[in-house]
Amino acid sequence: MTAYSPRDFHPLRFQLATTAFAGGTDTPRAFLERCLATLAEREPVVRAWVVLNEAAARDAADASTARWAAGRPLSPIDGMPVGIKDLLETRDMPTQMGCPAYRGNFPKRDNAAVWALREAGAVILGKTVTTELGGAHPGPTTNPFDQTRTPGGSSSGSAAAVAARMVPAALGTQVGGSVIRPSSYCGNVALKPTQGGINRGERQATSMSTTGIHAGSIEDMWLVAIEIGKRAGGDPGRPPLSGPPVPPSARRPMVLGVMETEGWAALDDASRSAFEQVVERLRAQGVTVLRRAEHPMLEAFEASLMGVQAMTSAITGWENHWLFRNLVAQNPDAISARSKAVLAMAERMTPEDYRLHLLRREEVRARHAALAPVVDALIAPASPGPAPAWSGDVPGQPPKPRPTGDAVFNTPSSGIGAPAVTIPLCAVGGLPMGIQVMAQVQMDAHATAIARWMLETIDPVVA
Amino acid sequence: MTAYSPRDFHPLRFQLATTAFAGGTDTPRAFLERCLATLAEREPVVRAWVVLNEAAARDAADASTARWAAGRPLSPIDGMPVGIKDLLETRDMPTQMGCPAYRGNFPKRDNAAVWALREAGAVILGKTVTTELGGAHPGPTTNPFDQTRTPGGSSSGSAAAVAARMVPAALGTQVGGSVIRPSSYCGNVALKPTQGGINRGERQATSMSTTGIHAGSIEDMWLVAIEIGKRAGGDPGRPPLSGPPVPPSARRPMVLGVMETEGWAALDDASRSAFEQVVERLRAQGVTVLRRAEHPMLEAFEASLMGVQAMTSAITGWENHWLFRNLVAQNPDAISARSKAVLAMAERMTPEDYRLHLLRREEVRARHAALAPVVDALIAPASPGPAPAWSGDVPGQPPKPRPTGDAVFNTPSSGIGAPAVTIPLCAVGGLPMGIQVMAQVQMDAHATAIARWMLETIDPVVA
Repeated sequence: MTAYSPRDFHPLRFQLATTAFAGGTDTPRAFLERCLATLAEREPVVRAWVVLNEAAARDAADASTARWAAGRPLSPIDGMPVGIKDLLETRDMPTQMGCPAYRGNFPKRDNAAVWALREAGAVILGKTVTTELGGAHPGPTTNPFDQTRTPGGSSSGSAAAVAARMVPAALGTQVGGSVIRPSSYCGNVALKPTQGGINRGERQATSMSTTGIHAGSIEDMWLVAIEIGKRAGGDPGRPPLSGPPVPPSARRPMVLGVMETEGWAALDDASRSAFEQVVERLRAQGVTVLRRAEHPMLEAFEASLMGVQAMTSAITGWENHWLFRNLVAQNPDAISARSKAVLAMAERMTPEDYRLHLLRREEVRARHAALAPVVDALIAPASPGPAPAWSGDVPGQPPKPRPTGDAVFNTPSSGIGAPAVTIPLCAVGGLPMGIQVMAQVQMDAHATAIARWMLETIDPVVA
Repeated sequence: MTAYSPRDFHPLRFQLATTAFAGGTDTPRAFLERCLATLAEREPVVRAWVVLNEAAARDAADASTARWAAGRPLSPIDGMPVGIKDLLETRDMPTQMGCPAYRGNFPKRDNAAVWALREAGAVILGKTVTTELGGAHPGPTTNPFDQTRTPGGSSSGSAAAVAARMVPAALGTQVGGSVIRPSSYCGNVALKPTQGGINRGERQATSMSTTGIHAGSIEDMWLVAIEIGKRAGGDPGRPPLSGPPVPPSARRPMVLGVMETEGWAALDDASRSAFEQVVERLRAQGVTVLRRAEHPMLEAFEASLMGVQAMTSAITGWENHWLFRNLVAQNPDAISARSKAVLAMAERMTPEDYRLHLLRREEVRARHAALAPVVDALIAPASPGPAPAWSGDVPGQPPKPRPTGDAVFNTPSSGIGAPAVTIPLCAVGGLPMGIQVMAQVQMDAHATAIARWMLETIDPVVA
């Protein structure tokens, strides 16, 4: 195994290839075949996929090849092979959600975002591993940079498939930290959009889940997001993700704020040092970087973040508990012990408890909104260090906590519903650690533009 | 057939019976048997039910009987037989949604509100007829007061089952006018709660659908609503319906506003006259009744309602169109020609069109909120007259428009997300016509208290 370095790692990039598609020197079918070759090589160890539909993918890639040859691609992502997290329905593959209760579940429907991707010409290659129902209980996927470590969760397979260069992009979902954290651990870029900005289709049952995009490059990330937003819009009642039809240009921020969250104290020394070096490099570029002690509004925001991890867990546990109850009522073994513990926690709550959590969430949202005139964006580690080791539960012993890592740096943006973009700007101990940029609600393109500037300007930190 | 009069019609009332349950002179099992006897008599013509689970209902009624005998009922609605609209999932009965695509669909899950009803001891008797997917295409149910007329839709079976005294209460859902309109046509009371106040469980896919309650009495209506709210809470991210644990006391309003909507001009003379007589009787009780010409804020609100019918149709059509697309993709005959027309309309929309409708909706909401200091509530006919005749489509000809009546008086509260209560205060041509009370968002108990005062104070109008 070679130590990861963001300077040397070359992610798979789709947008770069489209010039060759247009020029006739490469084709979407050839691109797909290269993806399949990588997949055949890496999958036995990485285990990112639940199911593949290679025949349909080849047909779709051939159709895309014909469109590029005719000079009539459906979109800039026409021909892009994409993985779909196995929580989202696809009409040609089962949707099993990493959960025994859904084994063989095959509703033969396309999620709104999947439908939009097909309309844009993308090639739906397969379903990627998710933790059970998007929760804590892990699937079999390993970290592409160290097979003894977790790829993160819950979008484990999507993050790992992109990092292993099997596909240039994949859809994930985040309710706590399920897109940004695994992308941090896997050295991807990723967008967790403004809550509601990408239509969740059938997955509307919780108030914080969001469809997000894992990609090798920020250009591909944005193109996938905007091509979905243009076609599938946002959640019912919510404005769609909007922004330029091309990747936003790099934008140099004037003022960034550091968001510490309740995870700051637990950050290991090497990871904190890597983050502080990023801050120093930003300052060296003339960017003002505010710390919490330097601005009362930033301090007030941080104060409101204490307890957010528990608050978001309680909100989601409550919102999922009829689903979980029904599954357990049908079959006591339908969900894991980890998911049962979440259900037991929710069963102790009342609607009034839930309402108090919502009030707390509103307070956090208000304190974040108050930062709009203070900072162009907030930055933070995208995870508390690089991917932790994971060797599985021990039979007969209680499930180990947090097998896919800790979402403590991600629950603020999830709770607020604010967009977050992670970029692979650090290596710690030979493994990736992302830096996230979080902006005000609806400012997805702005967050992307700042992240792009950082990615193109700041020399990566290898700690 | 006898002409309907609100003075002579005696609805089935559950709350009244509970004194006898407590005193040992009546039992929930006997109450259920009386319901089943009525059902056996009326159902061949009314056709309110898709499926019954009489065995499970009898078991539940026996368990309730034991609890009342022991002096330990689970709630004031312990033992109440309830019908469930066939859009909502029930673990012991199929959920077929009035749609060929869902024939035999049996997910064996309880909707959150159904789960709450069971926890409160209610007896889940069966599934009631819905129009196809809650849209315009009708089921077989007839109006209990005139079998040549529609019961209204989409909650056709729930409204008719209550009006035929088969059950004291039933759950419906409203996205345009699907609770208040059929209750108006059937002489029931009904609550369409604040949007999001009653947890919709698996039915979160549209931004205006709401679970509502049809009942014979305002006391039963409130008790069902609050017992659900106490247990299942609201939609994800939304505060639960809240208010007193007992039916709100009658509250005399000081100022009511008349809401004309874009349906006013089309109101037939007899129905308009009946409504104006209600207004006169309110004034005779010392209530100030404002008309649009008398207050600029009321006029501004009315102006914003022009086009709301089309706006709400477009929003819902868009929000449902992935569902509809997937159904048609699986089987071209999966949905009716009426539903296909809705899909075709939505396919012509873009996310930006949808976003513009949402902006318009915000404007209507703002203008309604501005009325908070002006009127205690708004009143309006709950439907444009009594139930229209319905004799079915003619094979080979295009589907007739609006087979279950016109939602024009209901789309304002649906679009705004405001609570509405209808009460059976008029008879027009020997058929029921409801009067609705619409209050500010979250003021469900306030709307109920005013409606209760009107029901107890205003002499019904027979026109």
